[in-house]
Amino acid sequence: MANVKTKHLFLAASLSALMTVVACSPGGKAASSDSGATASEGAPQSVPAMAETSDELILQARDFLEPVPVSAPTIEGVTATPELVGLGQALFFDPRLSATHSISCASCHYPGLGGADNSPFSAGFHGERGGRNAPTVYNAVFNFAQFWDGRAKDLVEQAGGPLVNPVEMASPEAHVTEQILALPGYSPMFAAAFPGEVDPVTLANAQKAIAGFEATLITPNAPFDEFLRGDSGALTADQKAGLSLFMDKGCTACHSGVNLGGTMYQKFGVFSDPGPAYRPPEDKGRGGVTGNAAEDYFFKVPTLRNITETAPYFHSGSEPDLKRAVAVMAEVQLGQTLSPDEVDKITAFLGSLTGDQPQLVIPQLPVSDAKSPPPEQ
Amino acid sequence: MANVKTKHLFLAASLSALMTVVACSPGGKAASSDSGATASEGAPQSVPAMAETSDELILQARDFLEPVPVSAPTIEGVTATPELVGLGQALFFDPRLSATHSISCASCHYPGLGGADNSPFSAGFHGERGGRNAPTVYNAVFNFAQFWDGRAKDLVEQAGGPLVNPVEMASPEAHVTEQILALPGYSPMFAAAFPGEVDPVTLANAQKAIAGFEATLITPNAPFDEFLRGDSGALTADQKAGLSLFMDKGCTACHSGVNLGGTMYQKFGVFSDPGPAYRPPEDKGRGGVTGNAAEDYFFKVPTLRNITETAPYFHSGSEPDLKRAVAVMAEVQLGQTLSPDEVDKITAFLGSLTGDQPQLVIPQLPVSDAKSPPPEQ
Repeated sequence: MANVKTKHLFLAASLSALMTVVACSPGGKAASSDSGATASEGAPQSVPAMAETSDELILQARDFLEPVPVSAPTIEGVTATPELVGLGQALFFDPRLSATHSISCASCHYPGLGGADNSPFSAGFHGERGGRNAPTVYNAVFNFAQFWDGRAKDLVEQAGGPLVNPVEMASPEAHVTEQILALPGYSPMFAAAFPGEVDPVTLANAQKAIAGFEATLITPNAPFDEFLRGDSGALTADQKAGLSLFMDKGCTACHSGVNLGGTMYQKFGVFSDPGPAYRPPEDKGRGGVTGNAAEDYFFKVPTLRNITETAPYFHSGSEPDLKRAVAVMAEVQLGQTLSPDEVDKITAFLGSLTGDQPQLVIPQLPVSDAKSPPPEQ
Repeated sequence: MANVKTKHLFLAASLSALMTVVACSPGGKAASSDSGATASEGAPQSVPAMAETSDELILQARDFLEPVPVSAPTIEGVTATPELVGLGQALFFDPRLSATHSISCASCHYPGLGGADNSPFSAGFHGERGGRNAPTVYNAVFNFAQFWDGRAKDLVEQAGGPLVNPVEMASPEAHVTEQILALPGYSPMFAAAFPGEVDPVTLANAQKAIAGFEATLITPNAPFDEFLRGDSGALTADQKAGLSLFMDKGCTACHSGVNLGGTMYQKFGVFSDPGPAYRPPEDKGRGGVTGNAAEDYFFKVPTLRNITETAPYFHSGSEPDLKRAVAVMAEVQLGQTLSPDEVDKITAFLGSLTGDQPQLVIPQLPVSDAKSPPPEQ
């Protein structure tokens, strides 16, 4: 810890800017810290206990990092009944919410590929590419804000974004509810998910349902979680060495909490400019949202959970190699050049962050009928 | 039957052309009739028996129609071990087999939408649309040939088509194996699926695996299947009346067998031209494959299984309303104008053809690594 704190004296200016960003962020209200550790209402309290331990490394890690809970957290304003979660799952997998009826949430946040898509930029509506790498939906509920630039405060707000983004799903707002209303099978599902509401089929409710489903997409029981809970044997010697380096070098200054990330914004390039391939000059990140030049190139610190599953890396999706990504981060964020051995060990540690991947059944969707609007061509 | 036969005297010329087509078709070798009724090797022989019955309607229906078996049929040349089927399922769901890494088999043959996509034409690579409606993958194994024009003799041959089609997945042949080889997790899966082969990672083996998986995508236990097996109460009065009409009007002349279709080619427009919206003049169907003008506008008779799930209809995907589709078919194929009541009853019968939809878990796919080729932009 002392080591980390010392290093951080050199980051004073940056951290000061950072704290301002965190403090003034409209996305600062945490889906995670408010509710991340709370099991679903009514769900069995089967969270494994944090065992007492004298293992120094475990104790040190617990200062920065938390295990993924084994049951889904709640989201403020969303009552995650099975009906709501089931509706959200159907909407998540339904390509007809896009203008072309060809892209669903699952297209870019693909359950078989770590909740992302292994592409630098996702192909949206008509194949155009977005400008940032699709973040994983897995454990997204634990992030303090959503999108790389934090422009959505939570998953409910986030779920509305891609639906109407002209490059992603490109549905005008009205189209989404029109489309859903024209698929008659959805109406009873909305009524059951939002009991007592006179007109439950709304975009706002669709967003709540999608968010309620996404909150179930967590990946507990990674080897590192077992380790944190007290099982010293859950990590290999290399992974333990990597964890030590990860903490001692200062990675945990930003990559902390349940998600080893998702708790703050940080500038990509604290010590040096990562260059235009990694950090395209036109994407100002958080600065683009707030208009505050001091926040240019600040991005939400991404989760490192399941990082081995979600290449390529960075908001720019520009680095396919996890080891190179680790080396670049040390250099531009911490001003340090890691030895190849250090990179290997940290990468080995990152491999311990892959938890149980959700096994998702593609739901049977309400069918289109003669009155359902056809896709745009 | 007498009624049907009489009607068919008027179709002599067409039927004669048809028989030639069937006989000379390279697709004539049936995946279905060879093996459709055979349960998987080693699978439990749990096919429910056809009960003895004195129900005249059941007996008449059994002359033309067969239930979907409850276990997957075999495909010649494919040894459907769990390893092969599992590999096929992974490949079926893997978008990285397309040039843009954004389209998988499941994109157009979507398990949540009746094995098709509820779109007139599917959006492929870069959003271009194909020229024909995506046929359902469900029960496709029972079709005597694949594609609307029968240009693939079976699912193995079919599986290779969209992968390299420039409008669909647009992967050059070499790219498919290159891509698979560069996803290291696939190699052991191919080795397990094709034991004893020195270089198991080939496009040909990928096609076999996909076909072996697709053969499991069957939809048994529709109300009509229960009826055929002897349960007189499995259909409503309207559905029974519709079934009678379906047989008496002559629909079963083409829509026969397990799939109520998929046993022959037939001209779309036997009695009259359906018009350019339903039958675009430039798409010659089977004639486009064989170069024989006598086969112009012949298409594989599509299955009617799960037809309520798979709007819009016809190879042109041009009719979203099942009732209108029924009326059009009677008019242009049989030269008859159905009353609204007849259309309603036949449509009610078609509703009895929806069976158990496969519940598919999206498989965890081998992850991309630093050496995996990136998608085309």
